[in-house]
Amino acid sequence: MAEGMVLIKDQKEGCQLYNKGNFGYPLKGGGLEMDLVEAVFLLECNRLEVQRDGEPMSFEDLFKYSSTVCEGFDIKFLVYRDLRQRGFVVKAESGGLDFAVFPRGSTMSSARPVYMVRAVSERTALDITDSAGKVSQTEDRGKKLLYGVADEEGDLTYYIMSTEDPEGHVSAKVAGKASGRLISDRVFVYDSEGSEMLHSQGFYGKMLGGVLQLSLIEGCYLASVGALDVESAEGEAMTAENLKRFARPAQNEFDLRLAAFADLRRRGLVVKTGFKYGTHFR
Amino acid sequence: MAEGMVLIKDQKEGCQLYNKGNFGYPLKGGGLEMDLVEAVFLLECNRLEVQRDGEPMSFEDLFKYSSTVCEGFDIKFLVYRDLRQRGFVVKAESGGLDFAVFPRGSTMSSARPVYMVRAVSERTALDITDSAGKVSQTEDRGKKLLYGVADEEGDLTYYIMSTEDPEGHVSAKVAGKASGRLISDRVFVYDSEGSEMLHSQGFYGKMLGGVLQLSLIEGCYLASVGALDVESAEGEAMTAENLKRFARPAQNEFDLRLAAFADLRRRGLVVKTGFKYGTHFR
Repeated sequence: MAEGMVLIKDQKEGCQLYNKGNFGYPLKGGGLEMDLVEAVFLLECNRLEVQRDGEPMSFEDLFKYSSTVCEGFDIKFLVYRDLRQRGFVVKAESGGLDFAVFPRGSTMSSARPVYMVRAVSERTALDITDSAGKVSQTEDRGKKLLYGVADEEGDLTYYIMSTEDPEGHVSAKVAGKASGRLISDRVFVYDSEGSEMLHSQGFYGKMLGGVLQLSLIEGCYLASVGALDVESAEGEAMTAENLKRFARPAQNEFDLRLAAFADLRRRGLVVKTGFKYGTHFR
Repeated sequence: MAEGMVLIKDQKEGCQLYNKGNFGYPLKGGGLEMDLVEAVFLLECNRLEVQRDGEPMSFEDLFKYSSTVCEGFDIKFLVYRDLRQRGFVVKAESGGLDFAVFPRGSTMSSARPVYMVRAVSERTALDITDSAGKVSQTEDRGKKLLYGVADEEGDLTYYIMSTEDPEGHVSAKVAGKASGRLISDRVFVYDSEGSEMLHSQGFYGKMLGGVLQLSLIEGCYLASVGALDVESAEGEAMTAENLKRFARPAQNEFDLRLAAFADLRRRGLVVKTGFKYGTHFR
């Protein structure tokens, strides 16, 4: 063991570990250089003895040492170990990714990796820009990006990450203008012409006894694109900005949701509340 | 129509509405007095004409009027309408409850209510003490408490509310003391005696290659009941309070969770993370 790596000097043993399980990286002139995750894994399986300054290290020693020199070692080890136990050959990967995983039954020499893996704790906050960047980088190389997420107990859930570009063919433009009234937290359109127009042109709202009810977000969106005039319960005219100001305290992250709603509408999709499914939209 | 109620003077028509559908409340000396939800519902079905100052009111007029005089009218109406359309007789209820619902096919005169219903918007913040009080009050009367929750679109989801008193038979007391080390966001117990003790006495933690990993919350709980000594990654002793101070920024609402964890443990239950199920514990 030296400088955060484990070295295997015995050529025969090194060869065996490399050839049978694709552990480590062969060194020029013989022997094998090994990552800490690999060494801890092999030590756990009793397939390796690691010495430091001539003394054998226990699993505890090597694990503690690895945790000190390598950030997030415990999570990385959990993911590495799980994938190895599932029968995959796993190699450390650089550039913001943790592991490359080869097809089952294949090795580094016989195949290209199928998955790039990031090992994270369930408590890790993910940066969407960074994650999206990694997705396209991985997809460009013809591989899939997996997140191995470890929970408190060390159980893992894998997520395949991909980007979607949703598209529909319902026009985002509404021809005409309806009038509605804000009642508690929705907007009611009473005249049948306006109701019919909004319902038929973009499947907005829901009919209730001849009256169209629009959600706050539908109301705000339609008011902001000029397709709806809204009055308050007291009969006073409200601007789109007035309505937004009313909606913000009524609904968490209203502006974020409205931006997502408007974007999906611009993509030609019909957007409805996802309340029943525990999501913002469906 | 008078004073927020609708009066039906014609004895024959009143009788019919009351006898056929249990709408309204018969008045002494004939005629029927009707709630606004009932009147709006009957107006929507064209089974009622409502006059105000001698002029007939449209659905829009009566709905607007009702929304003005009755707080949360739109949500109450949605729930009332839905239950009626499902074939139940529904009557207004007082004391913080909105409706009493009679068994299908039964009327007020032939049966007692089976459900007490509260009509709320998906955006309503519920007070747990108030809700729990309503549950026991309703259960004491031999009925079930339903929450009818309306989403943005006016779609309803019903929840039966009840209280549970979970109990198990795993002792909350741990005999003995183990030692562990905090590594990133979990506590590792390396010695096999301590591991064995915690695992066998309360199914704490999870084994990983001969080492027991405890979640932060398990670690904090065990440290606070004196069953665990924890040292930092640097080898310094940590008190239970130190460990909690470390855990709080790592996990949202840590103190709340710890309180729930400790209570469930005191009830003799084994508590594990519910991450995989989108909950705090299982």
